[in-house]
Amino acid sequence: ASRPAETWQTGSAERPLQLANLLELEEAAAKVIPAAGFDYIAGGAEDEWTLRENRAAFGRKQVAQRVLTGKVVTDTATTILGSRIAMPVIIAPMGGHGIAHVSAEAGTARGAAAAGTLHTVSTVATLSLEEAAQAADGPRWFQIYLTNDDGFNAELLQRARAAGYNAIVFTVDVPVGGNRDRDRRNGFVYPAAAAPRNFLDASGRPRAIDRGFKSRLDADSIDFVKRHSGLPVVVKGVAAPDDARLALDAGAAGIQVSNHGGRQLDGTPAAFSVLPAIADAVQGRVPLIFDSGVRRGTDVFKALASGADVVALGRPVLYGLALGGWQGVQSVLQQIERELRTVMQLAGAATVDDIRRTGLIG
Amino acid sequence: ASRPAETWQTGSAERPLQLANLLELEEAAAKVIPAAGFDYIAGGAEDEWTLRENRAAFGRKQVAQRVLTGKVVTDTATTILGSRIAMPVIIAPMGGHGIAHVSAEAGTARGAAAAGTLHTVSTVATLSLEEAAQAADGPRWFQIYLTNDDGFNAELLQRARAAGYNAIVFTVDVPVGGNRDRDRRNGFVYPAAAAPRNFLDASGRPRAIDRGFKSRLDADSIDFVKRHSGLPVVVKGVAAPDDARLALDAGAAGIQVSNHGGRQLDGTPAAFSVLPAIADAVQGRVPLIFDSGVRRGTDVFKALASGADVVALGRPVLYGLALGGWQGVQSVLQQIERELRTVMQLAGAATVDDIRRTGLIG
Amino acid sequence: ASRPAETWQTGSAERPLQLANLLELEEAAAKVIPAAGFDYIAGGAEDEWTLRENRAAFGRKQVAQRVLTGKVVTDTATTILGSRIAMPVIIAPMGGHGIAHVSAEAGTARGAAAAGTLHTVSTVATLSLEEAAQAADGPRWFQIYLTNDDGFNAELLQRARAAGYNAIVFTVDVPVGGNRDRDRRNGFVYPAAAAPRNFLDASGRPRAIDRGFKSRLDADSIDFVKRHSGLPVVVKGVAAPDDARLALDAGAAGIQVSNHGGRQLDGTPAAFSVLPAIADAVQGRVPLIFDSGVRRGTDVFKALASGADVVALGRPVLYGLALGGWQGVQSVLQQIERELRTVMQLAGAATVDDIRRTGLIG
Amino acid sequence: ASRPAETWQTGSAERPLQLANLLELEEAAAKVIPAAGFDYIAGGAEDEWTLRENRAAFGRKQVAQRVLTGKVVTDTATTILGSRIAMPVIIAPMGGHGIAHVSAEAGTARGAAAAGTLHTVSTVATLSLEEAAQAADGPRWFQIYLTNDDGFNAELLQRARAAGYNAIVFTVDVPVGGNRDRDRRNGFVYPAAAAPRNFLDASGRPRAIDRGFKSRLDADSIDFVKRHSGLPVVVKGVAAPDDARLALDAGAAGIQVSNHGGRQLDGTPAAFSVLPAIADAVQGRVPLIFDSGVRRGTDVFKALASGADVVALGRPVLYGLALGGWQGVQSVLQQIERELRTVMQLAGAATVDDIRRTGLIG
Repeated sequence: ASRPAETWQTGSAERPLQLANLLELEEAAAKVIPAAGFDYIAGGAEDEWTLRENRAAFGRKQVAQRVLTGKVVTDTATTILGSRIAMPVIIAPMGGHGIAHVSAEAGTARGAAAAGTLHTVSTVATLSLEEAAQAADGPRWFQIYLTNDDGFNAELLQRARAAGYNAIVFTVDVPVGGNRDRDRRNGFVYPAAAAPRNFLDASGRPRAIDRGFKSRLDADSIDFVKRHSGLPVVVKGVAAPDDARLALDAGAAGIQVSNHGGRQLDGTPAAFSVLPAIADAVQGRVPLIFDSGVRRGTDVFKALASGADVVALGRPVLYGLALGGWQGVQSVLQQIERELRTVMQLAGAATVDDIRRTGLIG
Repeated sequence: ASRPAETWQTGSAERPLQLANLLELEEAAAKVIPAAGFDYIAGGAEDEWTLRENRAAFGRKQVAQRVLTGKVVTDTATTILGSRIAMPVIIAPMGGHGIAHVSAEAGTARGAAAAGTLHTVSTVATLSLEEAAQAADGPRWFQIYLTNDDGFNAELLQRARAAGYNAIVFTVDVPVGGNRDRDRRNGFVYPAAAAPRNFLDASGRPRAIDRGFKSRLDADSIDFVKRHSGLPVVVKGVAAPDDARLALDAGAAGIQVSNHGGRQLDGTPAAFSVLPAIADAVQGRVPLIFDSGVRRGTDVFKALASGADVVALGRPVLYGLALGGWQGVQSVLQQIERELRTVMQLAGAATVDDIRRTGLIG
Repeated sequence: ASRPAETWQTGSAERPLQLANLLELEEAAAKVIPAAGFDYIAGGAEDEWTLRENRAAFGRKQVAQRVLTGKVVTDTATTILGSRIAMPVIIAPMGGHGIAHVSAEAGTARGAAAAGTLHTVSTVATLSLEEAAQAADGPRWFQIYLTNDDGFNAELLQRARAAGYNAIVFTVDVPVGGNRDRDRRNGFVYPAAAAPRNFLDASGRPRAIDRGFKSRLDADSIDFVKRHSGLPVVVKGVAAPDDARLALDAGAAGIQVSNHGGRQLDGTPAAFSVLPAIADAVQGRVPLIFDSGVRRGTDVFKALASGADVVALGRPVLYGLALGGWQGVQSVLQQIERELRTVMQLAGAATVDDIRRTGLIG
Repeated sequence: ASRPAETWQTGSAERPLQLANLLELEEAAAKVIPAAGFDYIAGGAEDEWTLRENRAAFGRKQVAQRVLTGKVVTDTATTILGSRIAMPVIIAPMGGHGIAHVSAEAGTARGAAAAGTLHTVSTVATLSLEEAAQAADGPRWFQIYLTNDDGFNAELLQRARAAGYNAIVFTVDVPVGGNRDRDRRNGFVYPAAAAPRNFLDASGRPRAIDRGFKSRLDADSIDFVKRHSGLPVVVKGVAAPDDARLALDAGAAGIQVSNHGGRQLDGTPAAFSVLPAIADAVQGRVPLIFDSGVRRGTDVFKALASGADVVALGRPVLYGLALGGWQGVQSVLQQIERELRTVMQLAGAATVDDIRRTGLIG
């Protein structure tokens, strides 16, 4: 649902950001994004225990300082599902970038391309998937929620393929909306300015979205997405080894370990806590993408050392977008890459592969 | 003891509540219930360590996110001691609802019935057990404290049966009043407006209560309650496996795991912490009711996954009553059921039985 | 050292105290005792880690709620080194009660006797040991620090015996004064009004104390105290099993497990944490007295369940003295006994011996 | 890089300090040292987790109170790499003492000598190594960072030997500058008043430093330092057993366990946490120097009991220098020695060797 066209005064600056770190972005973004929109982005489910735990779990593993190995950081580049990217950090799917900045997903796409990495466009993006695809060159993935209208679903997947997306990220952890207390208090609905255009028909009228998203998700759903898109399918929202096995058996080309940034099931463990068991279950048969809680280069390092192939960055990207448009997004990605390089050097890892071979402490 | 008839200005609103969660009710209720009455309801024994620990213990267990099972939540209904209820949540016995709202136990009874579940009327209810029974249809239990007057005790149990109560909840964890620092500071006694009418004789004079409650409680006490009521007896206040075995051997029809909401023995473990060992001792021979610390749908889920058959909700019901009368009580129950449904869906549990088969993490 | 006779405006009230608990006494006492004196009493060594840990350690053990045993609390009386006392709580030795109240040790002695228990008079008491002995009937112990003047030491022990003390408490954990940051900041020395009279000779001039206390303490020191007093010797300040064995071998009649209330070695474990290992080493051959951190009836219960025979209460007694003179001391002791009774009843312990047979959780 | 000659108003007092402890120095020093300079000294990398953890780790080990051993503290003197020092505490290398006090390294050198211990002069000291060497008698070490100019490196090592330094401390944990958020926010660069004179050529022009420090450090680097200095080489910045083995194999004469005071790799364990494993790896073949987080005598005790031969003190020395010049440095060292003596006495350790034989708890 979206409100009738009210004014949505949000970020519109276009500038690089002077960052000390990504954590400080939240407070700054709160001054630019309207309060209910900010809460929607920043908030998590219920008591936000999992939201906080997603960060805290990183603190329970440590990185050994290794400085006599003679190694020097050469490169942070890596490849994911056939796409070469400059760093093992991509952009996670998030709805309604128009909530944060007037350029919406176009800004995010351009920022990702400028930083040399890929981004994921959401089903509930502000821009249509075609508009987002045209905003910048470079690899891009399309994220899908299955609606209760299978015709629409099939059509959306075909549109994604046609628009040149390289993979489909199929989100399975929203069979029901999370209990988000902030949104309930704010009575939040997407503002008209950020309403998802993928659901507009040729005449600009909404379709399908009023039928809601599917609650029943299983191997058949994965098969449906594969069949109708003809693209590699990353199953996103896997937080248990048994779900990982179900996804593998159903033909997933990748698995995105995630608890939706703490926005769905409050009281579920940190994504970082469940990562090792999922990596064990997957045994390297498909790449692992990891999200939920990443804010520091050291978090990227720890996730890769725990079995992830790349990490996906969420909220900080929207904050960067809100504060600096595409240049803000680029600044965010460059900052985390810079931090990662420092960690790598101090931990004696010259490449992304070296990170994967590093053991953590704790 | 009760004070002479002073005015007790407490809740009198009758309205549904817009809730984000049950936790926020406490602050709101503190503005409606007179301070000493609020402290009596909200407070715990001594340093309130157990009061806080009752909540904290839930946080040490986590629920796995399971979203590829293909399950969809169908129903939260269950049966307890022969009564069918719409959700695995009932209302715990609490004294003096008149402290919180002018409708007293009548409001609670009506709210419970409206939400499709059962409630427990306390020995020290404001209304007489007969008044409370007439307030609404639906299943109801009567809670008893044994006074030092066995004639009165027998009479009370017979009255409960005659009034149509479906079971007796025999509270055994008040052989002595807890050290409640707040009440001692406030010099709190029940206000006249909330004085327990079960102890008034035909001419309106108090009886029996001045003789105090029994300190010596054992198998014989349980037998006494069974014999004089002719109803199933739930032994409430069991927090150790050995007490559970004593209760079973004495013929308990159900066991209510509870530390009286942290109001009795400060420094005893959280009720949730002792639940698994008690479930092991009971081995399913009688149903387990669980209370002490439940505030979230996820707490209900965790308690059921740890061996409870239903949970009993305490303070939040009184807060709902204070703020909205019977409609407030209904709102509280509906909110926790709504939260439970979301957790069930995200944890891959379609029914209450599925929850019982789910393992927790941690 | 003591300052020349300045005025020391401290507690002088004589009244019973209305207490919710013993913890709240500290804040109240801080308003009555001059600031540097209060800091001397309340403070601990260095960062006060051990001071806080002495309390925190109790929180890591829990008491099981047992309410179906049919037991009813009968009595809290016990016997220690031949003295019958009304509760398993005595008063620990503390210097200079004149810092807290004009009645000094006389008030403490009278309060202890009124509550039916015994107290310990310090070497550095404000009153002489003879004055303190005359203040009240009932059992009393004398605590000694060995000065570097053995003649004086022998004389002091003989005076204690002559004055009717029932035992000597030989403090061994002050071979050097603790690093007490508060006292260093305050430049604290005993005020003239509280200067220890045991060190005054017949003409009122100080003796021996300027030679300082012994640093070298061992089996010979214990033997010296036994020989010159002819009384049972409790060795106080034992916090390691090896020291307990040394004390036993040297003929100690009792062992007082203590870290001097966190005033000596900051960073040493809580006294409650080391109690079980010391109880194991002592194997019941002599009674164990426990101090350092006791504030609640539940702490008394936990210490006894961990091997102590009685506990000694320190700072709260001085606070009670400051606020209400001897009646304040009595109130403090009665409050902790009342709390203990409640815990006993809720834990299914009818007597002090029952407590000793109870296991803790955690 | 250094800014053009601005005025740098920093500490200039020369006086002994009345200290309760070393921790309180930080707040006092913050009032004397210009804010960006203070942040440079006090701050750590990123979230300062490791900075805090360096302190917190000490709190997880405890010292047993042992008071019946008959031991009396005699002496805190010890020998390190042939130098006799009055206490097992030396001064760690730190850059730019001119940031804190007008006397710069001359004050530190004089304070160390007055307290009877040795100090380490940094490559990036404000004074040239020759100026620092002339400031006071007594043993001294020179710390080197290898620049990318090997001719300059060799020359610097030869200058150190010529100036009478007794050992070289080769810092290996700065292959890259740490992510220091405070410095990034402040845009901090060394003020001209504190610019490192070791890099000035005969005509006062900077050389070599603009080429940066080496990132590739290994056994060859250690060999280079040995060869060109002809002095014993302490490899500093070892925080992993494998690096310790590499250093030993390369001929290190000593190993300094350190994480650079939490200034380099945030999220690496506390230095104190990794000390035991490094001591195991080194097996006493060379002395271990320990730094990072030492503030209390009890920390010194714990580090020695965990395998260190001496500890190096960092920030508190600069704070003492800022507040009192050389006398402030002396006060700092005397205070920690005084604390150490108290701990030794209460733990039953008469000498530094006794400390090394003491086991910790936890």
